[in-house]
Amino acid sequence: MMSALHSGLFTDFYQLTMAQGYFSQKMGERRAAFDLFFRKQPFEGGFSVLAGLDDALDFLENVRFSGDDIAYLKKRKVFTDEFLDHLREFRFTGNVHAAPEGMPVFPMAPLLRVSGSLEQCQLMESPLLNIVNFQSLIATKSARVSLEAGYDNVLEFGMRRAQGFNGALAASRAAYIGGCTGTSCMLAGKMYGIPVSGTHAHSWVMAFPDELSAFRAFATQYPDNCILLVDTVDTLKSGIPNAVTVGRELAANGHRLRGVRLDSGDLAYLSIETRKMLDAAGLDYVKIVASGELDERIIHDLKAQGAKIDIYGVGTKLVTAEGSSSFSGIYKLAAVEADSGAMTMKIKLSDNIGKSTLPGIKQVWRLFGGGGEMMADLIDFEGERHDFANGVWGYHPFVEYERKFYDGIVSAVPLLTPVMKDGARLAPPRPLTEIRAACRAGLETLHPTMRRLLNPHIYKVSLGQALFDETRRLRIREER
Amino acid sequence: MMSALHSGLFTDFYQLTMAQGYFSQKMGERRAAFDLFFRKQPFEGGFSVLAGLDDALDFLENVRFSGDDIAYLKKRKVFTDEFLDHLREFRFTGNVHAAPEGMPVFPMAPLLRVSGSLEQCQLMESPLLNIVNFQSLIATKSARVSLEAGYDNVLEFGMRRAQGFNGALAASRAAYIGGCTGTSCMLAGKMYGIPVSGTHAHSWVMAFPDELSAFRAFATQYPDNCILLVDTVDTLKSGIPNAVTVGRELAANGHRLRGVRLDSGDLAYLSIETRKMLDAAGLDYVKIVASGELDERIIHDLKAQGAKIDIYGVGTKLVTAEGSSSFSGIYKLAAVEADSGAMTMKIKLSDNIGKSTLPGIKQVWRLFGGGGEMMADLIDFEGERHDFANGVWGYHPFVEYERKFYDGIVSAVPLLTPVMKDGARLAPPRPLTEIRAACRAGLETLHPTMRRLLNPHIYKVSLGQALFDETRRLRIREER
Repeated sequence: MMSALHSGLFTDFYQLTMAQGYFSQKMGERRAAFDLFFRKQPFEGGFSVLAGLDDALDFLENVRFSGDDIAYLKKRKVFTDEFLDHLREFRFTGNVHAAPEGMPVFPMAPLLRVSGSLEQCQLMESPLLNIVNFQSLIATKSARVSLEAGYDNVLEFGMRRAQGFNGALAASRAAYIGGCTGTSCMLAGKMYGIPVSGTHAHSWVMAFPDELSAFRAFATQYPDNCILLVDTVDTLKSGIPNAVTVGRELAANGHRLRGVRLDSGDLAYLSIETRKMLDAAGLDYVKIVASGELDERIIHDLKAQGAKIDIYGVGTKLVTAEGSSSFSGIYKLAAVEADSGAMTMKIKLSDNIGKSTLPGIKQVWRLFGGGGEMMADLIDFEGERHDFANGVWGYHPFVEYERKFYDGIVSAVPLLTPVMKDGARLAPPRPLTEIRAACRAGLETLHPTMRRLLNPHIYKVSLGQALFDETRRLRIREER
Repeated sequence: MMSALHSGLFTDFYQLTMAQGYFSQKMGERRAAFDLFFRKQPFEGGFSVLAGLDDALDFLENVRFSGDDIAYLKKRKVFTDEFLDHLREFRFTGNVHAAPEGMPVFPMAPLLRVSGSLEQCQLMESPLLNIVNFQSLIATKSARVSLEAGYDNVLEFGMRRAQGFNGALAASRAAYIGGCTGTSCMLAGKMYGIPVSGTHAHSWVMAFPDELSAFRAFATQYPDNCILLVDTVDTLKSGIPNAVTVGRELAANGHRLRGVRLDSGDLAYLSIETRKMLDAAGLDYVKIVASGELDERIIHDLKAQGAKIDIYGVGTKLVTAEGSSSFSGIYKLAAVEADSGAMTMKIKLSDNIGKSTLPGIKQVWRLFGGGGEMMADLIDFEGERHDFANGVWGYHPFVEYERKFYDGIVSAVPLLTPVMKDGARLAPPRPLTEIRAACRAGLETLHPTMRRLLNPHIYKVSLGQALFDETRRLRIREER
């Protein structure tokens, strides 16, 4: 990551004005805990994939206010010299508990719990949300696309229309976690160790006198890794016949044409015709790659129509999460030290019940049934003991009269584990391939009805008895 | 900008494989010209705003392959040592013609023309598209929001849900160009000199024993710049009464409460009631700020309902361009030096006529009528002479039988002017405030029917006679 990414200024103005307020009220050092969670699944889907944790921890470990940063703040004429001197020494020295990166996650359950001084935790709100929201959004989209296309069949090609520089790089990382097998972006490959691949552009064909010479030149250059883009002139009348010629020439020299890429026109029809033409020419091993404004719904439709596509190049709609361009993660105070020195649970009510929060230091228990399938997530206070083997009551987070008895629980796994203590990571970054494998395994423990595109079954997230009772008490008290 | 942003690896893999292909075919030094243009207005709107030009030129001036970058490429086992040695010396030494940043722009007309060696121009495709596509998208969204809300009434609050690090920073820049008056993101403020502002979060209120003490503490800290968030408990029953108390206390000490912020509930209803309560308390100068999932359509509706909102805080939907999360800019070869040494015009046909391109080195003439209004853009070959005073024929880019005679032309301004020669900028970066003012002035020369949200009038973009004839000739020849 780049050094500017570790600037303490990568936060919202109000975090700094609040921090100064806490500082001058002598409240900055009070102990506090914040939850990062989300309210609504993107894409009207049944699950999300948590991503960005490693980059978030990297930020927390390295965030600093440089001399330049302080000079810039001084010019705002809003901050006192005492506070700026204090910021100069800023380090994040708090703790983080988090769910594992790559895990399927659900609304209302905390994904990260950040605890430490009120000031430090407050200042980290904006960068943590920025990093985790975006990568979770793209990992989720990538998982949806990969589930439709079949794992190992999707390449991410999004850089040119991504939302900015990091919109391309972080997106490539998250897309890989979600299931893509590689990216087109070289810098993402270098930064994150993601496999990089690609074909060629229309301009290659246009730079030569004709399509056949362009194809021949490319095949000469890359005899064992040649994928030809066949729609610069006309896919079936020109592109495929020329690709067949070059494929045969390669074969005559002991090489194999790797693929052809379709990039416009009716992909269902063209891929079926292309397959026939390739097979008839003895080129049945040549893969068909398709690209052009693809997403999970279009891939689903293409498959339903019997399209003969081996590899999907998915770009714009994946890396910009078209249709649901943001992840609804928020970061809310759950507990803070009172004047008395005791930790006090906190709740936000707001004018919409759906925007209210859950109080206290919480844990999320993921309940598994006999078939290894995920049954539900149960949120309760950290340290609360449950007799899972004999079943537990779970309460709807908002609807008081809705509760459910979970039995047949075979295991209950706490999702939040310590990942950072006193500002230091407790383990080195996990290899990306491991996170990717965990994501795939996690999605496989989800019931298929929760993975479908249209009207997925809703995974249950419930409150345990103690959390339910306390939330209810605070809601009534605050509403009096 | 950060140094990693200047890495030559910030491109797609296929640009490098093609570049190596050109290099080994000894075609890399051939002269070429590429157009950056777009095909379709985002948001089903009537205009787009060009943005990102300055960052694009910055990239072109500074792009390099570092030793690390070369080492990474070497490990791919795809590139020869000769080619890698050649990349080590890489500099962009070409020319750029561009439309001015902040200008309203329309489909098919080139926004940038990049000319120079085939290899250099090819390698710059992906980064130029990444930079220009994203910033143009957000400047366009910001202009739409600002036109609805009224200029000077919109603050950009999007960092926490932006698409990554640069998705926040570049978005703040582009949002400012499009009409926002400031950003919440401190680092964007520092990097781009954008005014920064903000209020406070729910956690501020929750960190105190009650809302009134939280408001008092904030007012004590910022007596002349205090905007209170009023929905942590209940907007009308708690937030506004407490804000009134604090507002009166500030007034008694010679200060003025600056504003209150509504962040949930029915903003139309709440703002009207809030205005009444503030006015009844003698606080008619207190501004009402509203936030929470706003965009141009919601602002349009709020205004139609008589909402009493002075300032709109617009975040997620602005910086992620919800509803149209990418800009359809593309970069296509328009001319290249042939074996003979002559420049040859190039056209891409594709299987969709809408995806075909326009050949040759072109200029875009913006035609203005007697009232100073924009009539149409006319694309023709650079150097082609037109007798604008006596009217010109313009041809539809795709529909051959559709042509139109433009008369009453008072002035015709060439949009593309030289901004970079031999790899060096021809002028220092324009101040952002100047680009922002140009954007506003440009939008004012657009007929109001082209600025409306729903079914806007479509601005005409036509081909001049010479370009039309040549495009037709090439289409027929290539399709034979």
